[in-house]
Amino acid sequence: MTEPNLSPNQERIASDIHKLASLTNPSKPGWTRRPFTSWYALGREWLQEQMAELHMSVHYDAASNLIGSIPGSESELKPIMVGSHTDTVTGGGRFDGIIGVIAGLELVRVLRESGITLRHPLEIVDFTAEEPSEFGISTIGSRGMVNNLTEEMLLRQDPNGLVLKEAIVLAGGNPDLISEQARKPGDVALYLELHIEQGPILEQSLHRLGVVTGIVGIHRYRIVVEGSPNHAGTTPMTMRSDALTGAAQLVLELEALMNLAYEESVVGTVGKLNVEPNASNVIPGRVEFDLEIRSINSSILVDIIAVYQEKAKRIAHQRGLAIQFDSLSKSEPIRVNNEVQSGIRSACQQTGSTLDLPSGAGHDGNQISRIAPIGMIFVPSKEGRSHCPEEWTSQEDVALGVEALIRAVLLFDQRLD
Amino acid sequence: MTEPNLSPNQERIASDIHKLASLTNPSKPGWTRRPFTSWYALGREWLQEQMAELHMSVHYDAASNLIGSIPGSESELKPIMVGSHTDTVTGGGRFDGIIGVIAGLELVRVLRESGITLRHPLEIVDFTAEEPSEFGISTIGSRGMVNNLTEEMLLRQDPNGLVLKEAIVLAGGNPDLISEQARKPGDVALYLELHIEQGPILEQSLHRLGVVTGIVGIHRYRIVVEGSPNHAGTTPMTMRSDALTGAAQLVLELEALMNLAYEESVVGTVGKLNVEPNASNVIPGRVEFDLEIRSINSSILVDIIAVYQEKAKRIAHQRGLAIQFDSLSKSEPIRVNNEVQSGIRSACQQTGSTLDLPSGAGHDGNQISRIAPIGMIFVPSKEGRSHCPEEWTSQEDVALGVEALIRAVLLFDQRLD
Repeated sequence: MTEPNLSPNQERIASDIHKLASLTNPSKPGWTRRPFTSWYALGREWLQEQMAELHMSVHYDAASNLIGSIPGSESELKPIMVGSHTDTVTGGGRFDGIIGVIAGLELVRVLRESGITLRHPLEIVDFTAEEPSEFGISTIGSRGMVNNLTEEMLLRQDPNGLVLKEAIVLAGGNPDLISEQARKPGDVALYLELHIEQGPILEQSLHRLGVVTGIVGIHRYRIVVEGSPNHAGTTPMTMRSDALTGAAQLVLELEALMNLAYEESVVGTVGKLNVEPNASNVIPGRVEFDLEIRSINSSILVDIIAVYQEKAKRIAHQRGLAIQFDSLSKSEPIRVNNEVQSGIRSACQQTGSTLDLPSGAGHDGNQISRIAPIGMIFVPSKEGRSHCPEEWTSQEDVALGVEALIRAVLLFDQRLD
Repeated sequence: MTEPNLSPNQERIASDIHKLASLTNPSKPGWTRRPFTSWYALGREWLQEQMAELHMSVHYDAASNLIGSIPGSESELKPIMVGSHTDTVTGGGRFDGIIGVIAGLELVRVLRESGITLRHPLEIVDFTAEEPSEFGISTIGSRGMVNNLTEEMLLRQDPNGLVLKEAIVLAGGNPDLISEQARKPGDVALYLELHIEQGPILEQSLHRLGVVTGIVGIHRYRIVVEGSPNHAGTTPMTMRSDALTGAAQLVLELEALMNLAYEESVVGTVGKLNVEPNASNVIPGRVEFDLEIRSINSSILVDIIAVYQEKAKRIAHQRGLAIQFDSLSKSEPIRVNNEVQSGIRSACQQTGSTLDLPSGAGHDGNQISRIAPIGMIFVPSKEGRSHCPEEWTSQEDVALGVEALIRAVLLFDQRLD
């Protein structure tokens, strides 16, 4: 028996990416398809048509996730789910999220063409609003799917006064049924997602496929440093309480802590920093900055923050500054289980050189992991760029990723009950 | 012969300060009397009345400075000029500038009451718009008085579209005559000004009067640090070009340079700093900050900037960042000449304990020094605060300063030809 042809059609995938890139808001930079906009609806309409042409049964669930399904040969098995998202950040690119949904379409096409019927039912999901939304929430659709969208979240308004509940209705969902329809642990056999790396590791290490070992946890803090906003000309250096020189030392202290060796990798960033009064002739009286650290190992996160807080307090004390720490958010890391990792690894190795790496960014998998095992495959991002118009992954690499995903689905379809 | 009574009337001075404080915009914080507003005009109307009551001859010069004059006994002598300004910053205080003009009024009152006629003519000046104005220019009136207000400056517009030239006309001036009326070197025998210190040195050193040794020069630079705005989660620490950690090191490097010992005192500040894109999950790609250093010794300023630029370039290179230096402005320091300093010192020592110190802030004296010797007397600022509602100098200290000014005028009236 010869192996059926499992190669995806590279041109077809490129054409799909091109099509979705054309359904974006032309008045925004890059390729912008914000959730709950008419451009988003157009993209999903096109997607729905593709699913229908493949004779999938298509529906929107209560959280307005777009789902195309095909039955498996063994009706008692739980579905394998493949998905990602088609919304983008403002000024975003053509690949983030999109290739994961298109990979699902291409998977079904390859199954159709090669006459393969899976044992498990298969669901291809375009999750609603994965990126940070105007409601201050990300991964809205996958949250809804696992009943992790609280009433408080559903009642939040965007800057135009639209309530999230209404937005979900407009996108085809039914928020009142979210809890009733919610998937529970055991309801899904496995969730798989193909995504761009959004970082430089695969490209720089010359590997073409990444086996994701987990998704990092993120601890975010807001730090306020207060000194005295005195005259920059008349206050001697020895009589200053400069909030900015203090904050600068705290920024470098975090960097120094990040550059120490840890059991597992960790990154820390001050991305946002504001100075008050922010005038060139006034000594800064107040600096507020946001700090985040990420690792797949949550005890490393806890330990580092404890050390950092101690050091920060000492620095503030030495400089005569007041300092305040507020926790903004804490998400727990998610480990991909060893069976899923090794299955994905062997599927990937049939197609290209692979590297194990954690995902430094959050994904819909964070939510789905509450009810099912998850696995992810990464393809390289040129220069590590994402969430910008320059975001790029070559046609060849996308196709390689899609092939790895197809092989992984077939492998787990055999292995899993 | 007994010395005539040269003591100013403390209650009268306090009442004048109170009166001007009442002529401020009630819809703004603190005591706000911005130049070219109706509140400013009201203040000057009151001032004009006081001058007229003292039988001074009052006029507005071409640059709209309000000048009250009394003749001297020797008509061939050039005038001694005493002045300051009555405009404030938004949210400013009750003392900055104001006490210098009121000191001039009180000087004339004391001369009248004690029956003294000076040898020199005396001019009391309320200089127009000393503080940074909506036209992006400060010391407008004193600039105009010495013909240092260029046509380009006169044609600048404020945010409402008012042209500076028109504003000067509305304030009683005649911009077309600025050049013709300009005072030239030798036209003024001496310029003296009483001002609050705006810094903490007198208060902390327990001295009540400051003999100003000069006005610092200010060199301002804008520095742009550019890195790569990558994803804060997916970019390992070793693959980052973080513009903010680089900028933090540059901020601390300036502080370290400032804390070295120099021949004369110097202060350096980064007061304004902006991060881009300034999002907590993006590594900062660009930081722009303004740096200024001030000293009464311009070669110290030049040397420090040269050293700083070298260090900054090295830091940027080590971190893989691009760096750009742009000079925003350079003002030269002004030295108060030794004769004026020693005259003021002996006048001050008759009234209270004195300290020599440079002025860390700019004043109308910067401009007047182009045509005449200048001298300044400082009184303490509570906690070094100025340009804020909390700005405070006690009645006793203001009166002490006024008395020192009166004694200095009498001394120089005798000494100078």
